[in-house]
Amino acid sequence: MISFESDYIAGAHPEVLAALTRTNLESLPGYGSDRYCEQAREKIRAAVGIPDAQVEFLVGGTQTNAVVISTMLADAEGVVAAETGHIGMHEAGAIEYNGSKVLTLPGHLGKIDPEELKTYLEGFFADENREHMVFPGMVYISWPTEYGTLYTKNELTRLSEICRSFEIPLFLDGARLAYGLESREADVTLRELAQICDVFYIGGTKVGALCGEAVVFTRQNRPKHFLTSVKKRGALLAKGRLLGVQFDALFTDDLYFRIGKGAIGKAERMKEIFASHGCRFALDSPTNQQFLILENAQMEKLKKELAFSFWEPYDKDHTVVRFATGWSTTDADLEALDAALGNL
Amino acid sequence: MISFESDYIAGAHPEVLAALTRTNLESLPGYGSDRYCEQAREKIRAAVGIPDAQVEFLVGGTQTNAVVISTMLADAEGVVAAETGHIGMHEAGAIEYNGSKVLTLPGHLGKIDPEELKTYLEGFFADENREHMVFPGMVYISWPTEYGTLYTKNELTRLSEICRSFEIPLFLDGARLAYGLESREADVTLRELAQICDVFYIGGTKVGALCGEAVVFTRQNRPKHFLTSVKKRGALLAKGRLLGVQFDALFTDDLYFRIGKGAIGKAERMKEIFASHGCRFALDSPTNQQFLILENAQMEKLKKELAFSFWEPYDKDHTVVRFATGWSTTDADLEALDAALGNL
Amino acid sequence: MISFESDYIAGAHPEVLAALTRTNLESLPGYGSDRYCEQAREKIRAAVGIPDAQVEFLVGGTQTNAVVISTMLADAEGVVAAETGHIGMHEAGAIEYNGSKVLTLPGHLGKIDPEELKTYLEGFFADENREHMVFPGMVYISWPTEYGTLYTKNELTRLSEICRSFEIPLFLDGARLAYGLESREADVTLRELAQICDVFYIGGTKVGALCGEAVVFTRQNRPKHFLTSVKKRGALLAKGRLLGVQFDALFTDDLYFRIGKGAIGKAERMKEIFASHGCRFALDSPTNQQFLILENAQMEKLKKELAFSFWEPYDKDHTVVRFATGWSTTDADLEALDAALGNL
Amino acid sequence: MISFESDYIAGAHPEVLAALTRTNLESLPGYGSDRYCEQAREKIRAAVGIPDAQVEFLVGGTQTNAVVISTMLADAEGVVAAETGHIGMHEAGAIEYNGSKVLTLPGHLGKIDPEELKTYLEGFFADENREHMVFPGMVYISWPTEYGTLYTKNELTRLSEICRSFEIPLFLDGARLAYGLESREADVTLRELAQICDVFYIGGTKVGALCGEAVVFTRQNRPKHFLTSVKKRGALLAKGRLLGVQFDALFTDDLYFRIGKGAIGKAERMKEIFASHGCRFALDSPTNQQFLILENAQMEKLKKELAFSFWEPYDKDHTVVRFATGWSTTDADLEALDAALGNL
Repeated sequence: MISFESDYIAGAHPEVLAALTRTNLESLPGYGSDRYCEQAREKIRAAVGIPDAQVEFLVGGTQTNAVVISTMLADAEGVVAAETGHIGMHEAGAIEYNGSKVLTLPGHLGKIDPEELKTYLEGFFADENREHMVFPGMVYISWPTEYGTLYTKNELTRLSEICRSFEIPLFLDGARLAYGLESREADVTLRELAQICDVFYIGGTKVGALCGEAVVFTRQNRPKHFLTSVKKRGALLAKGRLLGVQFDALFTDDLYFRIGKGAIGKAERMKEIFASHGCRFALDSPTNQQFLILENAQMEKLKKELAFSFWEPYDKDHTVVRFATGWSTTDADLEALDAALGNL
Repeated sequence: MISFESDYIAGAHPEVLAALTRTNLESLPGYGSDRYCEQAREKIRAAVGIPDAQVEFLVGGTQTNAVVISTMLADAEGVVAAETGHIGMHEAGAIEYNGSKVLTLPGHLGKIDPEELKTYLEGFFADENREHMVFPGMVYISWPTEYGTLYTKNELTRLSEICRSFEIPLFLDGARLAYGLESREADVTLRELAQICDVFYIGGTKVGALCGEAVVFTRQNRPKHFLTSVKKRGALLAKGRLLGVQFDALFTDDLYFRIGKGAIGKAERMKEIFASHGCRFALDSPTNQQFLILENAQMEKLKKELAFSFWEPYDKDHTVVRFATGWSTTDADLEALDAALGNL
Repeated sequence: MISFESDYIAGAHPEVLAALTRTNLESLPGYGSDRYCEQAREKIRAAVGIPDAQVEFLVGGTQTNAVVISTMLADAEGVVAAETGHIGMHEAGAIEYNGSKVLTLPGHLGKIDPEELKTYLEGFFADENREHMVFPGMVYISWPTEYGTLYTKNELTRLSEICRSFEIPLFLDGARLAYGLESREADVTLRELAQICDVFYIGGTKVGALCGEAVVFTRQNRPKHFLTSVKKRGALLAKGRLLGVQFDALFTDDLYFRIGKGAIGKAERMKEIFASHGCRFALDSPTNQQFLILENAQMEKLKKELAFSFWEPYDKDHTVVRFATGWSTTDADLEALDAALGNL
Repeated sequence: MISFESDYIAGAHPEVLAALTRTNLESLPGYGSDRYCEQAREKIRAAVGIPDAQVEFLVGGTQTNAVVISTMLADAEGVVAAETGHIGMHEAGAIEYNGSKVLTLPGHLGKIDPEELKTYLEGFFADENREHMVFPGMVYISWPTEYGTLYTKNELTRLSEICRSFEIPLFLDGARLAYGLESREADVTLRELAQICDVFYIGGTKVGALCGEAVVFTRQNRPKHFLTSVKKRGALLAKGRLLGVQFDALFTDDLYFRIGKGAIGKAERMKEIFASHGCRFALDSPTNQQFLILENAQMEKLKKELAFSFWEPYDKDHTVVRFATGWSTTDADLEALDAALGNL
């Protein structure tokens, strides 16, 4: 069945798979010390424009969030996030399992408001009871957000200024980074993001890899003995090459950006199709995830022809659903969508 | 300085101290296996009306919440609480440190709404993504709440029905239980509470003890190897007698209830004094904690004469403060309050 | 450089890679719910001879040990292992990070002695202070062990009997299971192992997969909400197909066993080569890992021609090193080894 | 029944109880910010001879070990201890519950050997696999040890030198510190200990307090936001006065040392009594705990007249038992012991 269920429905992008195949028989040392990991690190450093950035590879998104947050927070600290943030909602309590609280701020279509952040931080440090409370020790944002939306460069810069004035690192979850960077509405580059954030990750799983996320520590701020901390969390891959070879391929000939651009193109076309059928958007997303409000009976009918995701109930009779594009989305897929919507 | 800062400003109630003094030289075994612990357990079982209730003593409130919640939750579960609940706000992330998430519902003057709880639980179990989310595994309420308010018997019964229909235990934090039970507005007895809850605790620290909370498991539901789990959390007191003797005294000649009644009487008088001076109440509390909105300059002036607690900012010019009564509050203290307010 | 460094120096076995390539473009749902995962589960159930076995896929060995142990232990419990067990020595404290103690017994070439286990368990439950101690809640063994040795069927059966008499599950770490099963000295089959153990895993990473371990719960004893617990530990792979497709391939046409057999054949030849050069074995290993005691100067010289692993210092002048074979070891590799040893 | 079960069988030393009684009605702020806590800190700073030492009060020994160790270790680190150390044996896995491994060295009558420590540390940092292992991040010793033995000043100094050369803090568990300091065999003073250790605690529970341990950070090395970390672990006492008043009393007129001296005097007499009856000592302890090997039938007979502690089985027919003295041990108690042994 044609699927718009997510951006991780297919295997690896053909160029990534080719790289895995090409290098498959080479004897390589484990745990991320092989030449492909090093090569991928070098290419990522160049792409983000920070020659001494520290780049580490992990397997998946929840794992990456948990590892980064729990190794960077101090004992008394928690992480600030939008109430809709992935770490608070859909990671099964992974941050708390690592011992830290997720401190929530209101989510505005997935985004936190810089001034609300400032007010919260000022309030916290003025609160006479603060020693009995969890200290804000990091700010987590996702870009694109879980709702497909994007912070503007101004918003990001403002968040960064606030974080720095409170000496709190800003962590950007870039599970879908490519789809943000290639969005028509993006007004910030990868190099600028790298300057704005203290740590962020470049998502591979949702952008053409079989698995893998590349964490970038931008200010020589990688926690000490990081490999051991990763291992301790069960997150160290024995055949580290699996991550190195894939990221090496993703950062060769701009593949990462080409995948982003392709999926965005398909998403733009998908929006037109939905609009042409008078479908109701739950919100205006400029990236590869589109959220629609479907009448439940229609949703059930559509499910028989296409795969897509349940997002959340809207009201008794309607449901918010998600359609995503990715590198494997084809024009034929979109035509099938067009046809299926026409049949409703 | 005369203090209304909290209900734990003084040492032990004289009858508690007398019991400690009287038994001081006896040789007793450790870790809660002494005769006073057993005697106290027996008296508490009688008071709550459950002959086979399992009663365990712990040292403080945050510790008790962390031990009870973390030993009763299953791995995939978190605890549901009002967003203003003590476990979420003022326990420095103790629940999360033990690996579990606090799942928040709106707080209505410190209380969760039974129907909002039901809607949340139904929504959770209907959510197709629930396996990626923290399962609700317990409901935490405080009685009185952090705002001094009380659930009615109807509300408690409804919460209990909902919890049972979802097979989730209801846990009541009774750090200030005596002040609820003796409030003029309370319409529920200790025996009824014990029937309603699956587990609750009878607070000692804030009701005349030097330290100590008595956890009551009402349905033979004490976690297996509980003593070991307590020890593992650094919460097992070597001289368990310190808790046993105190609770034995508190449940002798109704001392626990007399302390509650006395403090409520003083609180009622305190309310009259505040009202007579035209002070503005932040909310209507029927228990021993009163919350006032003071103009900041007045607050600073009053601080020079009396001790009370900062609660939270109200607006730029006003602050919410808390005045509490306890067993050690005297008529003279209240007269001093009256005079000080008169001088403002 | 020719490498005997480990059994995970190469990528995927060609048949595994072919399966990944063949299925790469299919749209599949995530998180282990795809048809290849299901197919692989079915084949594994058949191979282990337990039609209702519960089979779950995880990414790596340390992760698998941590997930299985921490989800199966009760709060007061720890896991018993040989002092040389992988979970205690070389997993960076992952078990402890999940909150549980590793309780050690003497290691006899990597194995625990059943009678020493019995004595320990009897002693523990007779110890009057046991409530202040960590309860033994699981027994962990590896097969082959970290030293390449194998428990006999009799030893395994005895361990199992002891565990069952104390109602403690027996967990077998089969990271290198294939090399045990195909060893000339093995006197137990996969089906027998499955009957003996309460839970075990079939290692993929070291047996031809890019990554992946298949956990088998043999008695309907998979922890409740296991997927959520896996997610919470950052161990849930979004593209679960990566594991499903690989294990499907490994259990097609007996590939898993063929890989084991091939590597054992190479290891037997490798032993002959070492013996023919008068090399000193640190112990007699019947599986794919061989441990040699090299004079340090010789070791340094050999390192220039071949890659192998440091194991541990032997004395001031000698070092224990490890040579491993795998599916990618060739006759040419062994000839190069022969030649290199001849040159020493 | 007369009891030699432990040094925490009685309530508070009369001078401690008198202080609690005398201050009972004072209104004091909570959480360790009261004047008695401050006064006790000042007296302890003077007693240890470090004017800027940071002194913090906690409730019990296991709690103190867990809080100190888990707040001082870095993520990749564990704590080194003798295999018989309290933290590894009889604290129910509290260190592991906080996420850290206890790394064991052989125990020599409860002590670690400085040269074995050095060998271990050198070996660890030379191990090529160390990144997959838990880093030694602290050394834990107890003084007196769990076996009542004492490190000499030379041994302590050597341990300290080794720790400093590896930049690892030395933590001394002084749950029974007074009994070490007043032992005839002690050749080190409190001031010297304070110079030798990076952090240590002065035990109150076993030396005349109802509860309480005073942690001394000797080098401005108290972890940041320590109060919040304590609260997070459920270890912050609301009525901090209970600890402050008691330690103030213990460090007034040398009470702490007088208690130590008194108990040591009784222990010396107890040794003479055991010797005069030809009893067999399990080891030669110079402090307040004496370990005897009793024939099991005799042990059962003696149990009917006196209380003492099971320590560990010796062989099929004998058991090691412990007799302890404390401030509450009387000459009459010792005469009763003499008589009971005579009756055997």
